[in-house]
Amino acid sequence: MKKCIYPGSFDPVTLGHLDIINRAARLTDDLIVGVLVNRSKKSLFSIDERVELLKRVTKDMPHVTVKSYDGLLVDFAAQEKADFIVRGLRAVTDFEYEIQLAHTNHKLRPETDTLFLTTTVDYSFVSSSLVREIASYGGDISQFVPECIIDDIYKKYNNR
Amino acid sequence: MKKCIYPGSFDPVTLGHLDIINRAARLTDDLIVGVLVNRSKKSLFSIDERVELLKRVTKDMPHVTVKSYDGLLVDFAAQEKADFIVRGLRAVTDFEYEIQLAHTNHKLRPETDTLFLTTTVDYSFVSSSLVREIASYGGDISQFVPECIIDDIYKKYNNR
Amino acid sequence: MKKCIYPGSFDPVTLGHLDIINRAARLTDDLIVGVLVNRSKKSLFSIDERVELLKRVTKDMPHVTVKSYDGLLVDFAAQEKADFIVRGLRAVTDFEYEIQLAHTNHKLRPETDTLFLTTTVDYSFVSSSLVREIASYGGDISQFVPECIIDDIYKKYNNR
Amino acid sequence: MKKCIYPGSFDPVTLGHLDIINRAARLTDDLIVGVLVNRSKKSLFSIDERVELLKRVTKDMPHVTVKSYDGLLVDFAAQEKADFIVRGLRAVTDFEYEIQLAHTNHKLRPETDTLFLTTTVDYSFVSSSLVREIASYGGDISQFVPECIIDDIYKKYNNR
Amino acid sequence: MKKCIYPGSFDPVTLGHLDIINRAARLTDDLIVGVLVNRSKKSLFSIDERVELLKRVTKDMPHVTVKSYDGLLVDFAAQEKADFIVRGLRAVTDFEYEIQLAHTNHKLRPETDTLFLTTTVDYSFVSSSLVREIASYGGDISQFVPECIIDDIYKKYNNR
Amino acid sequence: MKKCIYPGSFDPVTLGHLDIINRAARLTDDLIVGVLVNRSKKSLFSIDERVELLKRVTKDMPHVTVKSYDGLLVDFAAQEKADFIVRGLRAVTDFEYEIQLAHTNHKLRPETDTLFLTTTVDYSFVSSSLVREIASYGGDISQFVPECIIDDIYKKYNNR
Repeated sequence: MKKCIYPGSFDPVTLGHLDIINRAARLTDDLIVGVLVNRSKKSLFSIDERVELLKRVTKDMPHVTVKSYDGLLVDFAAQEKADFIVRGLRAVTDFEYEIQLAHTNHKLRPETDTLFLTTTVDYSFVSSSLVREIASYGGDISQFVPECIIDDIYKKYNNR
Repeated sequence: MKKCIYPGSFDPVTLGHLDIINRAARLTDDLIVGVLVNRSKKSLFSIDERVELLKRVTKDMPHVTVKSYDGLLVDFAAQEKADFIVRGLRAVTDFEYEIQLAHTNHKLRPETDTLFLTTTVDYSFVSSSLVREIASYGGDISQFVPECIIDDIYKKYNNR
Repeated sequence: MKKCIYPGSFDPVTLGHLDIINRAARLTDDLIVGVLVNRSKKSLFSIDERVELLKRVTKDMPHVTVKSYDGLLVDFAAQEKADFIVRGLRAVTDFEYEIQLAHTNHKLRPETDTLFLTTTVDYSFVSSSLVREIASYGGDISQFVPECIIDDIYKKYNNR
Repeated sequence: MKKCIYPGSFDPVTLGHLDIINRAARLTDDLIVGVLVNRSKKSLFSIDERVELLKRVTKDMPHVTVKSYDGLLVDFAAQEKADFIVRGLRAVTDFEYEIQLAHTNHKLRPETDTLFLTTTVDYSFVSSSLVREIASYGGDISQFVPECIIDDIYKKYNNR
Repeated sequence: MKKCIYPGSFDPVTLGHLDIINRAARLTDDLIVGVLVNRSKKSLFSIDERVELLKRVTKDMPHVTVKSYDGLLVDFAAQEKADFIVRGLRAVTDFEYEIQLAHTNHKLRPETDTLFLTTTVDYSFVSSSLVREIASYGGDISQFVPECIIDDIYKKYNNR
Repeated sequence: MKKCIYPGSFDPVTLGHLDIINRAARLTDDLIVGVLVNRSKKSLFSIDERVELLKRVTKDMPHVTVKSYDGLLVDFAAQEKADFIVRGLRAVTDFEYEIQLAHTNHKLRPETDTLFLTTTVDYSFVSSSLVREIASYGGDISQFVPECIIDDIYKKYNNR
């Protein structure tokens, strides 16, 4: 069976991410959610917290593993011997960046290919940064993130 | 194993199409290339010719089958019990249309999902219509289509 | 109160169009749905049929009038003394075309401005041409058009 | 009459913004220009200065009020009981972001809808950040901002 | 000096085209305006008429020659020994198509490169097809085409 | 002969930049590569280093000069009496930004026009920021930058 990696920052995981995980899990029985240790951007949740939140929301999915990685995605893919990288596509600006990344990764490691799934229309406008902004003002994020992590997000802002 | 359909008009099949077929064939061992009987557009090659050309260029790929279909893609997917539709992405305008189609197909038949592969950068600008235009003036199409079908294309235009 | 025109071909009216009509009707109490007599494209429904279908789906909206027009939109706007043209935006390629049209119409008649509403996310991928294609093969269009016009569409194709 | 909010950072207000204000003021006789207290980005002008500059350029528009707001736009809209949020559209990348925002705001507060006006072609390339960059090097900004605020901008850079 | 070709259908030439011709003429003292004999699309003006209209509007430009061509642009470029093809860019959808064409032409004939000029903002929304549509209904086209060809366009529609 | 400026940050110069320099050098025998002293972004290489690397990779091009500049591009163009600014186009998001910049520069200094070349398809996805990210993790950058500067890049990260 083919091994797939779904990489991202997941700061925090949204219902859009979860939609892609569910659909990628139909494609393969060996899906790794790869959580990037992002050195350049300050994240709301630490790398350990982001991994923990993802494990919580995927705990009933037998074929899904959550791992953190540091460095280049192609090096992580090489280490895991992954056949495919899975990415979610929402909008055109996403797409341009993603296609650049896919071409670069293909040059760096032809053995791993990239495949794309389109986010379900209901979640096509959800992003982690929008969730963070809404939560920072105490707004209602229940339509955008899994229920079991809502309190963890509000706690970060001490505003509910 | 998951069953995938790669649909299209393939009028004629290009090196860009072949690139997607090769890569989709790494993803699954049951890939159907679905050739659309296009009622509304007049095609250069008949449906039987297009199927024959595709069989020729995929003859060494054991897991690839070529079939024609008439009607809606979701009905073909239902009939074949396909898990995934595979589409190639080249450019932004492609992408918009594709994402609309993917959402429509998802509404019509949620059991079949759509996944996308990005055409290798060398073929990202190749299209069947460009090939037809170049060939119609006797231009050189050898960089754009599989070698074994070049003569078939020129013959249609009687110009070489 | 400001007078608005929502122009289109409506061949046939979709749930996406109806969503825009509903929202534009909140903006003004004088909304004209302008149905274009399209000379260059062959339409599925005649101009009278399209007007009749629109009247049926808007019959409970007191501030909405349905009229056909022939010729340039700015001439129709001048005749109706409209303050605004309302357009629905779905995708980026839509947007480019719409912005060109808005600039042209502004040059031709500065008194009428153009305003845009974004189609609700659930209908963002629905278009009349997709509806026609699905219906032509007898596919299920109930998620895309108002219930009270479904049979009229199938009748055109004699396929249910 | 419908109440509309035109929100933004206005750091500083440009002729592009003023064009949208003028046109939105034709649509409603209750237009609030909402100036965002932007916590995350350092602004050139303080929130009080930005409000003051906007009051100066709109002082002859009887139906326009200028107010600052902190927090989520939907909360400001709720507090003001606004029916519509007005946004200016310039380019495709604008559009994608705006459509995401409109969908999010609709989910958070369905009572307030978003409508878009396209910036007049002459100002379609003007942005506050371009104005700041040009002014920071002492370049000529007279084609991009209202005359009565030019000196205020140069003073910030002490370069004229 | 470098030789440049500015190709197109020019059915009819617009102020947008003329803007590009003027600016390309600053770049080179050997500019050929290449008018495509378009076999597949029915044109409003015949190839001889389109050449004649272009000669009229460029008659005071000493370095500009107008020629028709039939077939592939790269073959015309080869015959003329052109160093560069000049294209005008208006919008994003233009751009995608143009970049595909530029890549194809580069593959077919590397000796001729493609360069792009952006249409002046005032003409960025003008196109020959919009001019034809407006003129067909007797609308005012004086802001979109050179004055000396306005009557020729109306005559085609017998409507003024 | 026309004088052209190819401006950028070049932090560091990539094979994509070099491709544009080569092609612009065919257009003119007076090409200035203008290296921006970027005050707002922290660069990997100092302005002197970036100029030195560019001189190294263009040392066999007789018509190419490398100069740094501080401030607005139009002021640099005025000082050099440049006829054209040359820019490379890769993707749609590039294009939108570039077209805004071109319009602004045209307003500020009509004597200098902007022309665009499309990056060769093989380098269409290469960017300085991708090079820096890959190099920062010790990844292989040999397909993306000129060979003679590879070691300089790795030295910055002390990781090879």
